Order: sequence, then structure tokens, then C-alpha cells
Amino acid sequence: MTRLRPDLPALARIDTPALIVDEVALQANIERMAKTAAAHKIALRPHAKTHKSAAIALRQLKAGAIGIACATLLEAEALAQAGVTGLLVTSPVVGADKAARLARLNRVSPVTAVVDHRDQLEGLRAVLADDDPPLGILIDVDVGQGRTGVTTLQDGHALARMAATDRRFAFRGLQGYAGHVQHILVAAERRAAAAKSVTALRSLAALLHAEDIACPVISGSGTGAHAYDMDGPYSELQVGSYVFMDADYGRLRQDDGLALPFEPALYVLATVVSANREDQVTVDAGTKALAVNGPAPARFIGLPAGASYSFSGDEHGATALPPGLPRPAVGARVLIGATHCDPTVNLHAAYHAVDADGAVTVIPIIGRYGAMAVVP
Amino acid sequence: MTRLRPDLPALARIDTPALIVDEVALQANIERMAKTAAAHKIALRPHAKTHKSAAIALRQLKAGAIGIACATLLEAEALAQAGVTGLLVTSPVVGADKAARLARLNRVSPVTAVVDHRDQLEGLRAVLADDDPPLGILIDVDVGQGRTGVTTLQDGHALARMAATDRRFAFRGLQGYAGHVQHILVAAERRAAAAKSVTALRSLAALLHAEDIACPVISGSGTGAHAYDMDGPYSELQVGSYVFMDADYGRLRQDDGLALPFEPALYVLATVVSANREDQVTVDAGTKALAVNGPAPARFIGLPAGASYSFSGDEHGATALPPGLPRPAVGARVLIGATHCDPTVNLHAAYHAVDADGAVTVIPIIGRYGAMAVVP
Repeated sequence: MTRLRPDLPALARIDTPALIVDEVALQANIERMAKTAAAHKIALRPHAKTHKSAAIALRQLKAGAIGIACATLLEAEALAQAGVTGLLVTSPVVGADKAARLARLNRVSPVTAVVDHRDQLEGLRAVLADDDPPLGILIDVDVGQGRTGVTTLQDGHALARMAATDRRFAFRGLQGYAGHVQHILVAAERRAAAAKSVTALRSLAALLHAEDIACPVISGSGTGAHAYDMDGPYSELQVGSYVFMDADYGRLRQDDGLALPFEPALYVLATVVSANREDQVTVDAGTKALAVNGPAPARFIGLPAGASYSFSGDEHGATALPPGLPRPAVGARVLIGATHCDPTVNLHAAYHAVDADGAVTVIPIIGRYGAMAVVP
Repeated sequence: MTRLRPDLPALARIDTPALIVDEVALQANIERMAKTAAAHKIALRPHAKTHKSAAIALRQLKAGAIGIACATLLEAEALAQAGVTGLLVTSPVVGADKAARLARLNRVSPVTAVVDHRDQLEGLRAVLADDDPPLGILIDVDVGQGRTGVTTLQDGHALARMAATDRRFAFRGLQGYAGHVQHILVAAERRAAAAKSVTALRSLAALLHAEDIACPVISGSGTGAHAYDMDGPYSELQVGSYVFMDADYGRLRQDDGLALPFEPALYVLATVVSANREDQVTVDAGTKALAVNGPAPARFIGLPAGASYSFSGDEHGATALPPGLPRPAVGARVLIGATHCDPTVNLHAAYHAVDADGAVTVIPIIGRYGAMAVVP
């Protein structure tokens, strides 16, 4: 089925280890999510924390997304420079320097921030000039993950009022990210947890509605629970991992027992660098090329069926082979399916995207830490 | 004791999360290892896979190291450009493009490669020109890790003869990296495993000696077992992690029951971005800022005693606080001790090195994957 093979001529001279994207699978995933959302009349604001790529964000916009979610200000800054619009930074922006950067960004490309504390809102107000465009604001609501977000209705209400009554801000609504729900394996349990997670959002939205505080946006959800969150209360979905459909999400089943309807699209190309054992070869992709916080890599193109991979340090993986089969030789190449896409992407400076004709395009990865080491 | 504090003026405007080095601890570690090696009349070729920094490698040379070990060709290329000499690439270099790069590097700065298979040696021979300086060669010996290296005396012997009788190569000796030994917690067990790991090296060296094949170099060891490897058969030690002395190595004890004699030097500076719970604050450093393959971060500067950290996604950490103490406010900053230094460094583009006066220097991190995305 797969078009991607490690012996494609265009891959032959790529230095390993290298991050590889199956363009055909990527585009199919983008279009399928867009189509499903359109059928449910819900907006998409796909999350760039997964791909950290302006090129992929622009494709998501082209497929109908209303904007792009970013985990960090650095991601938003890099995407804005490449012309990505409708940016939402999904974590509170804290500190005077970051606030000033956010205000500068908002002058170039209108952006929405989330807040869960009045100190954050006051920090942002302090850097917004009188003639600045209003900064979009969502109240971040803790929907059960215990990470960021207001934890009481009163706090959410007070913050929303502060934002809605200050002309420096454009209060837009609420965000609730149920990160604790997305990876629940059993569909019925995931559905129940998703339903439970939205109660705080519904309550706060009702409270604001009763006071005539307009709350057009409720932003949240993710790849794991997106099917259950299509019909409310969300106005938009921050789905991320569906673009690459890693092994972590590959374990999930839907209510009908089928897998999520997306194709694996992310691989690491590696070279066999040692083959002195009967039952094993060693490849040049280890913990600095593949994220360790996911299931062990188990999907390969270019290895015999039954092969398995285990990390062997920062730069190597030990690939165990079933007995009786010829071993790949030193110099052979293999594609290893990424098991947790976001942190795997973060280990690389660029993708090599392979299209249906086997041609390769290099796509830079943006917003990794230290890209802006010191605030100027 | 520590000079480093998150409220130092020079740290105030550094964007978080940021990688921080305690310069004083770093320099003390470099000098202590150099002194110990000198006392044992053994050479040091410290491993740059830990720090990925030309500036730190140059300090190690200044303190007396005979050269620098690199895990990848990319690291060696970057260090050579910065004037680092005596480079050894500790993994087999496989593939025609990489071999050609190694030959180019060797024309600029003499370099030593390791081989564990004749195909590798033939690949290197094919790209070395008649008037090239000879390429240094060590035979990589599997000393029990099961990753790379020859697995039989016969293979090692045959490879050494091939290298020693070809004027394109300068055969130098053997490498055996006992990665499986370095992290054994109990000193006596670690010492015993270290002793066991060198038997293959001794045997192969004796075999070569009997044939008058000069074998001046036996390279290996690491921070965990360095004290046991000082008195042979190694001629040089590839110690790496001692420069930062992370929590992983911090758990190790020596024969005298004391900790290894190095100081923690590596931290991530983070900001409290959410503080809505009684017993927890959330900081902006998660799995994209701190390596997950080590003990949980447990050493903090700027948090009350008894605080603990757990990862909360790619961009956040949940910091649990002991009851009854005032919580840090939103915007407060904290230094989190790195628990596994090599993969933590690899997540960042630069260090911020803080000296005894509290002044900060930015040090670039070199050789991360994708820096050279496509072979030219």
C-alpha cells in the first residue's frame, strides 16, 4: 500500500538519521479532518505544536481551518513571519518581555492569548498601547488536566469581565484543553471523560451568557476525542496529532471498534551501521532521533516482518530480527514509524517530505527552544 | 553553597525555558577530571556527545585533554570548524556520502574513525585519495553492550590487519565502550562489570602485539566507571557526563560510599505560568525542555524544600509543593536541575553560561540532527 520506501532514489543521499513525511498520507489526513469538521459545522484551529511547520500550517488553512493554535509564543512568532493567520497561543503568556513580544506580534498579525490569572491580564494590558489593535483573549479553563486554567467559576467569571470591559482586549470566549482525555484507549471511557471535561466550559459560558458577555469561541479538544467533541460545546477544535497519526494514537479505537481514520505519515530514516550479530542489526537512530515517551517503535519499512526495535543510547537502536531470515547489510536503510510525533519532530531541524512521485522537499521546523536565546 | 540563583539580574531577561550552565561548577569538574587522569598518567579524550559545544571542548583541551570524542560525524565537523583538534568519531561511519565527508574533514583536521566491519573500511578506503593524510582507525570492539563492535577476536584481528597494512589508514588501536556498565548503581558491581568488559580488549591487544601490529590506543570508559578504568588497559578515557554531573550519575556511589566527585552544573530556567491550585504551580518546562529518560527532576533552586516535579506535557511541568508554605507567584522563576544531561542539551539551541560574577554568555549547541538536512 505505502508509496514510501527507504530505497527511493530521492532518499538515497539524505543524511541519516532524518525525519521523513509521507506527503500523500499527510494531505489525506488534513483533508479528512477538514471534511469531518465541515460536515459537523465546527471550525478547526489545528495545533502547530505537533508539526512546528509553517508549510503544514498553511496547508491546514488552505483546507479550511480558521486559524492555527500554538503552544508557545515562539511558535506563533515564527508562523506569523511565514504568513500564517488566525493565531492562538494556547498557554498563558507570562513575563514582561514575552508580553511585549505578544503585543508586537499582535500589531503584525491579530493574535489571541489565553489567561488564567489576573496578573497575566494585567501584564498584557501594561504593554498594549492605546492605538494597538485589541488583543484577543480566551479564558483558559482547567477541564480536569490540572495543568493551567481557572479552577473555579468565580475566577473565570471575574477574568472574563476584566477582559470584556477593557478596550485593549477583544474578549472572545473560553479554552479548555482536555489533555488527560485524548489518550484513553477504550472508546466508551474516552467518550465519557470527554463529556465530563466540558461541564466547566458549559457552566462558565452560561454564566457569561446570562450577563450578556458575548462568548463566541469555545476552543479545545484533540485528536483522541475529536469525534466526541464535534457536537458541542466547542466552536473550534485544536486537533494536532491527526496530521501524522503516530503509534500512540494508533492504539486508540473508536466506538465502532475501528482505528481513528488517519494514516501514519511520520518516519525516521536510519542506516544500518553495524551487523555483527545473528539476530540483530544496529541502526543510527536512537533517543536523539526518536522520542522515547511513547510505545516502542514497531512499524518499519525496509525490515522483515517480525523485526522489533529497542533504544540503544542517544544515537543507536538495536533492531532484533526474527531467526532464519537474511539480515540487512551494513549500509542498508530503513524507515522507522514515529511513535510519539510531537517530541520526535522537536528533535529535528527539518522534515524531508516525500510526494507521490517520490520527490523530496525540505521543510524547516520552527520554534524550537533557544532559537531566540536572549531577549534583545 | 550554590552561586546560581534564578533571580540573578543577568537571568531576568532570558526567555524561558532556557538551558543554564553553572560555569564555576563546570570548570571545577573539567579540572578535577584532568587532575585525576594526570595523576594516573592516563589520557583524556572527553566525549562531546554530552555538551555538543565547541567552547566546552576547547576548555577540555586547555585543561590537558589530548582530543575530543564525538558520537556523530556532524558533531566532529562542527567542532573542527571551531578549531577543536584530536577528533575521534566513536560510531562507525557508514555510507558513501558520510565517508566522503569524513575524508574531507580529515584533510582539514586529522581525525580517527572506528570500524567494526570490513565494508566500513572498504567504504572509507574508496574515498581516500592517494595524497590524503592517512585516516586514523580504531577497531570498535563489543565489550558487552551489544550495540556496535566486533564480536569475535578473529574479526577484530582481520580488521586490524586490513587497516594496519593499508597506507591510506593509520591504524591506532582499539575502542571498547562499556555503556552498559556506566550506570550500575552499586560500586562493587560496577567495578566488577568494568573489569569484565575489558577482557576482549586485552585479548585482542595481545594478539596484535604478538604480530607486531602496534596498538598504542585503547579508548573507552565513561563517567560512571572512570575510576576503575584508570589503571588499564585503556590508554585514554572517553568521559562525557562528568562536566555536568546530572542526577542520573548523581545516584552513583564510589567504593568509599561517597558520590562521584563532580558538581551539578546543568539546569533549565523556567517560569511559573499558572498558580491556581493550593498544592501546585505549573512551570513552562516540559518534555521539550527536559529529557524524560532519567530520574524525575528533583533538584530545584528557587522552590521551597520538599517541592517535586512531574512532566505535564511537552511545554509544562507540574510542581507539587509541600502544604502550608507560600506558593511562588505567576511570573516567579525557578532553576530545575537536569536529570539526564545529554538528551536535555540536545533539546536546546544554546546554553546560557553563568560565571562567578553572575554574568551570562551564550554558547551555541552544535551538531543537532537536520543541521545539514540534505547532503550537498
